[in-house]
Amino acid sequence: MSTQELVYFIDLGGTLVFAISGWLAASKKQMDPFGASVIAFITAVGGGTLRDLLIGSQPVGWMVDQNYLLMIAGGIGLGFLFKRYLEKLRKTMFLFDSIGIGLFTILGIEKTLSFGLTPVIAVMMGTVSAVFGGVLRDTLANEVPLIFRQEIYATACLTGGILFLVLGQFNVNVDVRIILTVIYIIALRIVSVKYKWSFPTIK
Amino acid sequence: MSTQELVYFIDLGGTLVFAISGWLAASKKQMDPFGASVIAFITAVGGGTLRDLLIGSQPVGWMVDQNYLLMIAGGIGLGFLFKRYLEKLRKTMFLFDSIGIGLFTILGIEKTLSFGLTPVIAVMMGTVSAVFGGVLRDTLANEVPLIFRQEIYATACLTGGILFLVLGQFNVNVDVRIILTVIYIIALRIVSVKYKWSFPTIK
Amino acid sequence: MSTQELVYFIDLGGTLVFAISGWLAASKKQMDPFGASVIAFITAVGGGTLRDLLIGSQPVGWMVDQNYLLMIAGGIGLGFLFKRYLEKLRKTMFLFDSIGIGLFTILGIEKTLSFGLTPVIAVMMGTVSAVFGGVLRDTLANEVPLIFRQEIYATACLTGGILFLVLGQFNVNVDVRIILTVIYIIALRIVSVKYKWSFPTIK
Repeated sequence: MSTQELVYFIDLGGTLVFAISGWLAASKKQMDPFGASVIAFITAVGGGTLRDLLIGSQPVGWMVDQNYLLMIAGGIGLGFLFKRYLEKLRKTMFLFDSIGIGLFTILGIEKTLSFGLTPVIAVMMGTVSAVFGGVLRDTLANEVPLIFRQEIYATACLTGGILFLVLGQFNVNVDVRIILTVIYIIALRIVSVKYKWSFPTIK
Repeated sequence: MSTQELVYFIDLGGTLVFAISGWLAASKKQMDPFGASVIAFITAVGGGTLRDLLIGSQPVGWMVDQNYLLMIAGGIGLGFLFKRYLEKLRKTMFLFDSIGIGLFTILGIEKTLSFGLTPVIAVMMGTVSAVFGGVLRDTLANEVPLIFRQEIYATACLTGGILFLVLGQFNVNVDVRIILTVIYIIALRIVSVKYKWSFPTIK
Repeated sequence: MSTQELVYFIDLGGTLVFAISGWLAASKKQMDPFGASVIAFITAVGGGTLRDLLIGSQPVGWMVDQNYLLMIAGGIGLGFLFKRYLEKLRKTMFLFDSIGIGLFTILGIEKTLSFGLTPVIAVMMGTVSAVFGGVLRDTLANEVPLIFRQEIYATACLTGGILFLVLGQFNVNVDVRIILTVIYIIALRIVSVKYKWSFPTIK
């Protein structure tokens, strides 16, 4: 399997995980299945959609590749069938979510660079790809978005994205860069949650 | 009058009705006329604008055909002059609103297909065209959006859109397909309101 | 210095001022520096971004000219270092903010016209350029957006934009048109605040 294929498959996996997390967030708020499906969908595609609009890649990604819709349908189905079980899998979901944001960050960077934009913009768009779906999910489920709360969520994507680009300057193999970036993001999130790292608020 | 012209005129009519509904929603919240006009405008064009952005049809529709702005101005004027009277016309407004979402669904489907996208995406974009303006209206007027509450609103558009496409497979004349789809959506909404149909919430 | 250069430099100045105002709004809400930076960024680029998406100018403006990012970084830095001092400079900030919305209005109009759209659409897009960043700032900081409250904010942009176009019909020199429009907007805002002008709410 080539790196391209690997990234594509894991991208689909990230879409699945985000759809599940959107469904679970919605079902906690006693929505009906239709509303919950809408939120699962928006959580899964929100970040990539905003990125595509800003850089001008239209029709947006999930419109031109049906596999994304299938992944979202699968995520909704799994959320519906295994809701109780999945909610217990907190650590597994946290792990998948971290892998998801890591890969969405990298994909967002690569796509933005392919449009001839600068690395700074690419890191910003990578982060947007990774976190904006979650922001919409939290907003629609009437919670203060995660990135405006204590956890170092977006920061992990931003610094992970910079790591990915810096490693590229040293000609590190792309597979290795992807793995190191994802490991970095997972590690930073675990450590920050464990030690309750957070920025101080502005005085 | 050709089918094209008919659809165009009824699209303008839908824009008018949505502008009125936005104005009425805003005026209940004691906004000033400027804020209410903004909400009327957003209600009328919100759905089509999101659709156009996602499929990449820019400048968005209402920018390149002045008649849409005239319809919105007319809706605001009617809302201003006949507020009390229109609020009593609940059933008439419900009927117009149903015709409006039916036609917006069909127009959204046709436009999306003309961009070479799949029927599944087209039905989704048809629904977005029909319901997103109302979602923005409810959000801006600080109410929980209608589609996240009990009424079978978006479902009517989704299934109506599928009906429209399926009838097309059987070579049904397009005028007949439009009429049947709109009748279906009106009937489903009336029946669902009358019998208080709703999805159960997720347990 | 040519008019082009002048407008460009003042546009950068407007970006700086909006970034500061976003930071100050966020810091009142006890956000962490990351969240406050995001809000400063969105305040500064929000209006121009929505305008660019609607007219189809992508990648959006701040992605293709790094100076905008530098201005925003500068605004965040100034907000961080001189928060207490800047909050006392209410009148100066009000003046800069008025100059900012005036120039954003004019720039939005010129850019929209250059896409072959009508003057009516251009004035609307000018106003969107000027006010939408502030709407997002207020929404994210959980306040009712300024334009939905009493102050005649958006109206100043709308009428100022019309003034700018009308003066153009009389072949007034563009430098003079810019200065007159900005003076008009500043004057209208000062007078409307002083005499507590506001639209009556709809009865």
